[in-house]
Amino acid sequence: MLTFVDILEYVGTFAFAISGIRLACQKDFDIFGAYVVGLATAIGGGTIRDLLLDITPFWMTQSSYLIWSGIALLFVCLFRKYLVRLDITFFIFDTIGLALFTVVGIEKTLSMDFHYPFWVAIIMGTITGAAGGVIRDIFINEIPLIFRKEIYALACIIGGITYYFSLMLFDNLVIVQIISSASIFITRIIAVKYEIGLPHIKGEECD
Amino acid sequence: MLTFVDILEYVGTFAFAISGIRLACQKDFDIFGAYVVGLATAIGGGTIRDLLLDITPFWMTQSSYLIWSGIALLFVCLFRKYLVRLDITFFIFDTIGLALFTVVGIEKTLSMDFHYPFWVAIIMGTITGAAGGVIRDIFINEIPLIFRKEIYALACIIGGITYYFSLMLFDNLVIVQIISSASIFITRIIAVKYEIGLPHIKGEECD
Amino acid sequence: MLTFVDILEYVGTFAFAISGIRLACQKDFDIFGAYVVGLATAIGGGTIRDLLLDITPFWMTQSSYLIWSGIALLFVCLFRKYLVRLDITFFIFDTIGLALFTVVGIEKTLSMDFHYPFWVAIIMGTITGAAGGVIRDIFINEIPLIFRKEIYALACIIGGITYYFSLMLFDNLVIVQIISSASIFITRIIAVKYEIGLPHIKGEECD
Repeated sequence: MLTFVDILEYVGTFAFAISGIRLACQKDFDIFGAYVVGLATAIGGGTIRDLLLDITPFWMTQSSYLIWSGIALLFVCLFRKYLVRLDITFFIFDTIGLALFTVVGIEKTLSMDFHYPFWVAIIMGTITGAAGGVIRDIFINEIPLIFRKEIYALACIIGGITYYFSLMLFDNLVIVQIISSASIFITRIIAVKYEIGLPHIKGEECD
Repeated sequence: MLTFVDILEYVGTFAFAISGIRLACQKDFDIFGAYVVGLATAIGGGTIRDLLLDITPFWMTQSSYLIWSGIALLFVCLFRKYLVRLDITFFIFDTIGLALFTVVGIEKTLSMDFHYPFWVAIIMGTITGAAGGVIRDIFINEIPLIFRKEIYALACIIGGITYYFSLMLFDNLVIVQIISSASIFITRIIAVKYEIGLPHIKGEECD
Repeated sequence: MLTFVDILEYVGTFAFAISGIRLACQKDFDIFGAYVVGLATAIGGGTIRDLLLDITPFWMTQSSYLIWSGIALLFVCLFRKYLVRLDITFFIFDTIGLALFTVVGIEKTLSMDFHYPFWVAIIMGTITGAAGGVIRDIFINEIPLIFRKEIYALACIIGGITYYFSLMLFDNLVIVQIISSASIFITRIIAVKYEIGLPHIKGEECD
């Protein structure tokens, strides 16, 4: 049975894959390369998380992630002329994906037999949400965007901390999930709307 | 005892390492760097496969892969003047390696206690054959070649699908291996000879 | 209780993180990006080692590595004007880290239930010491420095070989550790002081 969370996860996978495929085609990748970059953007973070947690990578037991990345490729091929107009839609989808992937990463870590401290769960959530974009940028030979611009991974960390405190306040896990996801979603939306970024350490003194 | 498959695997390792070492020396790497790039090209794909399958990376229990990469380094140092003339030979060796590594990756996945669906075996075969080249290109700071040019990883996927159908048609595993390897070998040879590539998604609309 | 080795390990973590953070801020990363690059430089090698050995990455059970990377970030922010004058100090710290990380990597491999051959331990020691810098350079989109300049990873390999022979000569493990670390430290210091590098394979013949 398809749950609401499943649907959100497919939305996130689709949006992450779209972001990879679009960047790949700007760099003149062929459709196979574009698919691989899209797929890596979508599943890369969760794969690193699962390797670190020493469990079978999630996409190896369920083909839907590969299929949704394929649908994303088809979508870009067919509708590439209209993609720019959909930028805000993609941004919303991408942020939903970020929020949901982070919560999935946190919960997967907490569900392990070995009891990791909570900060490990926060890092795993952040890796699930943000590491796919780092792999994408390495594949297209650019400096990872999240290291230079925008509040992205930080939103995941804020979401993780929110998860921790919500867990102390509320008995209901669904409420915790909603509050935590919402905190990530809202943080990123506000940061992008008001162009809030993190400070840089500048100066030649760095040399 | 040295089997025929062992010999082909060493040929493949040697050819993969050569491709990494030559690109590294074009980028003015020192001999240590060239060796690491050569080694990573040769064993990188299988290492990622083994990490995903949660088994000990194959080269950690058998030193021959490191030794053959070392021989490849020596070979490039000694005969670098004549390498260009051997380009077709290396291309044949490289394609043999690709075909064989792919089949090895498929069979290793199918031999696992956990029964993965066959599409996972195809992906693992493709990773075994093609991911080493991606690592090589990341190390030399170039966009991975297989994302932009030539039918390379696609040949692995075709070989994987061929393996699947051969397995249904023939009882003898050796026949399945030969047909599958041959399909990869022939696909790549034809693609390169007739300059057949995959389409690209072009246009500024991607932005 | 804090042992002398713990202190050296923190010194190494701090120095490795500093090297990552400085390079990140030269590339105009924000403070989050700089922290991630610093952290990856410090823990990246050990993480790859632990993934290859199939054990829980060391930093997931102990928060000190994340904290020391954070202190390194604070340090660069506060004292960036004076960092250049401290170059020699950092070089010494970095080399201590390299020596110690390598020995830790060797011993962790030897302590595994599965008895790996000693050359695997040498490679794991080298990965522990040198792979963090490779990840750092991939993140900042540069060709890994250790592939082109200086004797760095080679010092780890020399240290590993020294470890092997010391182990045959001496009963006391502490003596073996000291001799092995010292060989790495001295190799690197001499190599940098006298500008000794490895030969390059040059020439257009490589093409």
